[in-house]
This record gives sequence, structure tokens and C-alpha cells, in this order.
Amino acid sequence: VPLVRIDVFEGRRTPEQLRLLADTVQDVMLEVFAAPPRDRYQVLAEHRPGQLICEDTGLGLERTDDLVILQVFQQGRSEEQKRALYAGLAERLETVTGLAPSDLIVSVVGNTREDWSFGLGRAQFLDGDL
Amino acid sequence: VPLVRIDVFEGRRTPEQLRLLADTVQDVMLEVFAAPPRDRYQVLAEHRPGQLICEDTGLGLERTDDLVILQVFQQGRSEEQKRALYAGLAERLETVTGLAPSDLIVSVVGNTREDWSFGLGRAQFLDGDL
Amino acid sequence: VPLVRIDVFEGRRTPEQLRLLADTVQDVMLEVFAAPPRDRYQVLAEHRPGQLICEDTGLGLERTDDLVILQVFQQGRSEEQKRALYAGLAERLETVTGLAPSDLIVSVVGNTREDWSFGLGRAQFLDGDL
Repeated sequence: VPLVRIDVFEGRRTPEQLRLLADTVQDVMLEVFAAPPRDRYQVLAEHRPGQLICEDTGLGLERTDDLVILQVFQQGRSEEQKRALYAGLAERLETVTGLAPSDLIVSVVGNTREDWSFGLGRAQFLDGDL
Repeated sequence: VPLVRIDVFEGRRTPEQLRLLADTVQDVMLEVFAAPPRDRYQVLAEHRPGQLICEDTGLGLERTDDLVILQVFQQGRSEEQKRALYAGLAERLETVTGLAPSDLIVSVVGNTREDWSFGLGRAQFLDGDL
Repeated sequence: VPLVRIDVFEGRRTPEQLRLLADTVQDVMLEVFAAPPRDRYQVLAEHRPGQLICEDTGLGLERTDDLVILQVFQQGRSEEQKRALYAGLAERLETVTGLAPSDLIVSVVGNTREDWSFGLGRAQFLDGDL
């Protein structure tokens, strides 16, 4: 279910590094966000200089051009699962890809089980397929 | 009202084919999703290889590079209207554009009538304009 | 908090004009949408001809290629704050950047305090950091 938009600056990562970033995000989805196997829907976009503008809401965080903005559209996760997602992403992305935890921004949007069709024109959550 | 993001791979469709895809999505919005005439707001994005990553949540669907991800931001539609949207999109996009129904992913996000301004700085749903 | 997606056509604005557009959107966020200082998260995307398709829901608005689509993801604002946002954006963008108010479309999506991590893997709204 999670549909994840990944926005980064262009020119900072090779295609292989971008893939590792996306793979690592997905690993965390599977491990701490209760996504079932093969539940992967990711849209990556690379932006030219100036096209991502992120400050820090006064939190004292330093942003660099390695910045990653994740927008996660999902249904049904609890507050605890979201906390685990944020912590898991920061820890794993730092370990695997070297991303500074201060360069990771995550925003979640919730919808409901009737809001998803994974193919064939069906509403798999409502039809008992999932 | 529906604001629709259409994400596809680049190099798979001519500009005319992309337009036909967008037109067909809009036709279904008008016919089965209760969109009024000229209620069309679409943002298309074409992605390089590797920038859309879609699996199948174990549903046994085969994805190809013709894949289409539709994200529909709207207010007020019922479960039945959403079901009709999914079925109508899959059927019509296959008939008109040849898209395999297994290559269509749709995710809906709901908001409310106060969440839209279509121009002039007004909230048309609240002001009685719509 | 607001995460703002700004979609425009390419080739209509210099990088400096794009920055002024984004800065002006942010100024309105700070002044009428109750965003705290340095609460700025913007993703800009420029689209090729044909990749933004906007009609007018029968409102009699003329759209040009200067069109701006703003999608604002946020939590907690009231109807009155949203009205002030729409009016403030239209007025200020016209004054500062010359954007016709008929070329501004705004859509808001709401989430909750548990849906944001601004860095470090923390949920700053829940942890008392914000």
C-alpha cells in the first residue's frame, strides 16, 4: 500500500545509489511499517538546483544537497508504526547509504481501504484479495 | 475537483499518445466519477528508467514499462463511485489506449470542500460558486 | 509543516523568477497560514508543454501557460486560515510576480501531528520539539 514519492536533487547519486536509496526505503517499509511482501510502489524524481527548498522549522538542523524528501501515502498505520518508520528510515538510510539523519524529511498522508486499486480495475482491499 | 497526478515512464508514448491517455482518464472522471464539465486538473510526469518501481503486493500481476500510476486527489466521492472509477479506468484505458489492466495503479486521497481554490483566491465550494 | 508542491510549465520563468514565486508562496505561508519561522518545505517541478492540463470547472476562468498549481500538505489549519491562504496567495503573487489570479490553483490535503518527521528520525510534533 504505501505509495512513496522520493524527491532528491539530481547529480548527487548514481543510478545505482538511487536504487539503493529506494531499496533501503522499501526494506524499512517491510520491516517496521507492516507492508506485506512485494507491496512496493515508489515514484522517484530528481530536481535541478533550486527546485527543492527545505529549511528546518527552527530545529537547528543543517540541510545539504543530499536531502531526501519522502512522502508516504498509506492507510491504517498507527502512531507507533509511524514513529518506527521515521526512526527506522533515519537509522537504515544512514547505515546503508550514508545519508545524514538531518537530511531526511518524511511526511505521511492517510487514506482508507477503498482508496486503492493495484490493478485490473479492482478494489483489492474491498474485494478480499488483500 | 479531482486533481490527478499521472506518472509514467518516458519514451513509451508519443505526445499524442500521452494526450490520449490523459483525455481518457478525464472522460472516465466525467462519466463515472461525477466530475462536472471542464473539471479537469491533471499533472503528468515522465520518469527515466528506474524511477518508477512497482511490484504487485503478491497479487500475481505482471507490470511492464507501460505502467501508469494515477493519484487522484478529490473530495466527496463514495465507495461505489471509487469502485466505478477503478473499473471504468481499467476498461476504458485498455479499449482506447491498449493499456493492460495489470499496468494500472490508482490511489485516491480525500480532502474536503474547504480545501480547494480554483482561481481568483476564492474558495469556490464555500462561496457558492460550485 | 506545510509541504508545498509547486507545478508550473518550463520555459516561462527564469531561475530567479521561479525563486521569487517560491519565496512569495512562503511569505504568505508565514503571514496568513500560521507557519512558524523557517517552516519551509517546497518541491518545484517544471513541466513540458502538454503536461499540465487545467480547465476551469465552468467558472469562466481563462488559463494561460503561466499557470501555477500549488498542492499544500499540512495539518491543523481552520477553514478561515485556508480562505486567508487562497486570498493571500492570489493577491501577493499578482503583486510580486505578476501572476494573474485566474492562473492560480490551490489544493490542500490534511494530515495529523503524527504524520511528520523533519529530521533525525524523530516525530517532532509528538516529542514536544514543536
